[in-house]
Amino acid sequence: ANECAIKVGRKYAADKKGSGCYTVITLENSFHGRTLTTLAATGQEHYHELFQPLTPGFVSVPANDIETLKKVAKETNAAAVMIECIQGEGGVLPLDAQFVKDVRTFTEENDIIMIVDEVQTGNGRSGMLYCYQNFGIMPDVVSTAKGLAGGLPLGATLISDKCKDVLGFGDHGSTFGGNPVCCAAAISILKRIDDKLLSEVKEKRAYIEKALEGAPGVEAITGMGLMVGIKTKKPAGEVVAKCMGNGVLCLTAKDKVRLLPALNIPMDVLKKAIETIKDACR
Amino acid sequence: ANECAIKVGRKYAADKKGSGCYTVITLENSFHGRTLTTLAATGQEHYHELFQPLTPGFVSVPANDIETLKKVAKETNAAAVMIECIQGEGGVLPLDAQFVKDVRTFTEENDIIMIVDEVQTGNGRSGMLYCYQNFGIMPDVVSTAKGLAGGLPLGATLISDKCKDVLGFGDHGSTFGGNPVCCAAAISILKRIDDKLLSEVKEKRAYIEKALEGAPGVEAITGMGLMVGIKTKKPAGEVVAKCMGNGVLCLTAKDKVRLLPALNIPMDVLKKAIETIKDACR
Repeated sequence: ANECAIKVGRKYAADKKGSGCYTVITLENSFHGRTLTTLAATGQEHYHELFQPLTPGFVSVPANDIETLKKVAKETNAAAVMIECIQGEGGVLPLDAQFVKDVRTFTEENDIIMIVDEVQTGNGRSGMLYCYQNFGIMPDVVSTAKGLAGGLPLGATLISDKCKDVLGFGDHGSTFGGNPVCCAAAISILKRIDDKLLSEVKEKRAYIEKALEGAPGVEAITGMGLMVGIKTKKPAGEVVAKCMGNGVLCLTAKDKVRLLPALNIPMDVLKKAIETIKDACR
Repeated sequence: ANECAIKVGRKYAADKKGSGCYTVITLENSFHGRTLTTLAATGQEHYHELFQPLTPGFVSVPANDIETLKKVAKETNAAAVMIECIQGEGGVLPLDAQFVKDVRTFTEENDIIMIVDEVQTGNGRSGMLYCYQNFGIMPDVVSTAKGLAGGLPLGATLISDKCKDVLGFGDHGSTFGGNPVCCAAAISILKRIDDKLLSEVKEKRAYIEKALEGAPGVEAITGMGLMVGIKTKKPAGEVVAKCMGNGVLCLTAKDKVRLLPALNIPMDVLKKAIETIKDACR
């Protein structure tokens, strides 16, 4: 999905502004995938080391610093800006709302494509269908995957009116694109991401915050909806290991414990899991 | 799968021969995929045009010309050579058997990774489980996908003993890698690709060749197994359109009509389809 999004951004710019306009600005601490190109897009040096040379034309700038982004975009004749509204791998860090709005205003004014990577944040995860809705903006291109087909493999790239004619017949393709079984799953999932489910996601978030904030060994809760980062006093890996021993699977994201439960997790299961996590943080 | 194969080839070479050893030699007229990197690997100029700049470190050489391949491999300090044993998109063209063997000997002697892209040719398509078996060689890395999970999305990269430790923990990953539903499908499919099925593939091939060779309007039959190219007197697109009108879906590949029927297509259905194709070629 991110490969397709990047292709749309680049081709839009090349068609409109010429072949010198191809740079994609991403954010430091981002994560956009594991292909050689999406590794180049990932703003973390250690992901760049093993498979050199990666695809040129990617520059990362600090998150939440609109002036640097503007400066670099101008210096590099940027084609697109690509962001995650919440940096997942980067530590479950939501971007500043004003920064996201400023990126949208700047890219709109300069006819630069704004790509939002919703692979981890999309499909109700943040409490809205797409996370960018929390920020009151409308991107030009959105990538989505992970939860989209409820566990079956499916990615999709949403393309706005502005970019709808960028890819013509034969310009892109994928053997498994539009796979009928996975699309049937996605149709079912998308029907079930209704107002009721989204409210439940927000309620579950509120429950988690209430239960963990101020609990012994817990320093902060980050993220949105059911994308939860927990800054713990103990090393995150230690907490995750202890949770696993007690039947609760968590991830880490940088220095945090990361929770990404199923959106429809029953409340009693969630409560039990949070008690286990609380214990492990103590 | 091809992204992973390329990553293995590059990292093996970088670990063993240093960071200057990264070039992947591919063949002219090849097709390796639609990511920015696999487009770079694809040895067809028109696939390179739209999304520049692509990933550096890919050079394509003419198929079936071992001396040029050797020369370019030495000039570029090649890390890997990547081939399809039958060029699918390129016109259903099997490589010369001697060339494939020579590539294997040369790469082995020079510690260059030999990658065989079996995305289209694998999983029984050629009459053998993998097409490289028809050539009596053993590659270092093999990519596979398409038929692997019987229609569900799954790719896999097979890595030989020589390369088995190249990717360590965290060096590669994929959200949908090892998806349990798709892997269950693949286990079922792989169990069903037995000697009986492979013999049937060869029998069906023999039937198609017998029925079409020398038929009016048919100039040549290429490919192996149930990967069939038909060089027709009429333009291939015209034949495909006529077949579609009569209920038979074919593809084109360059100047050929391309057939990729299900390996378990019943003989009566195959016979009916071939009669329709024969009619359309006339």
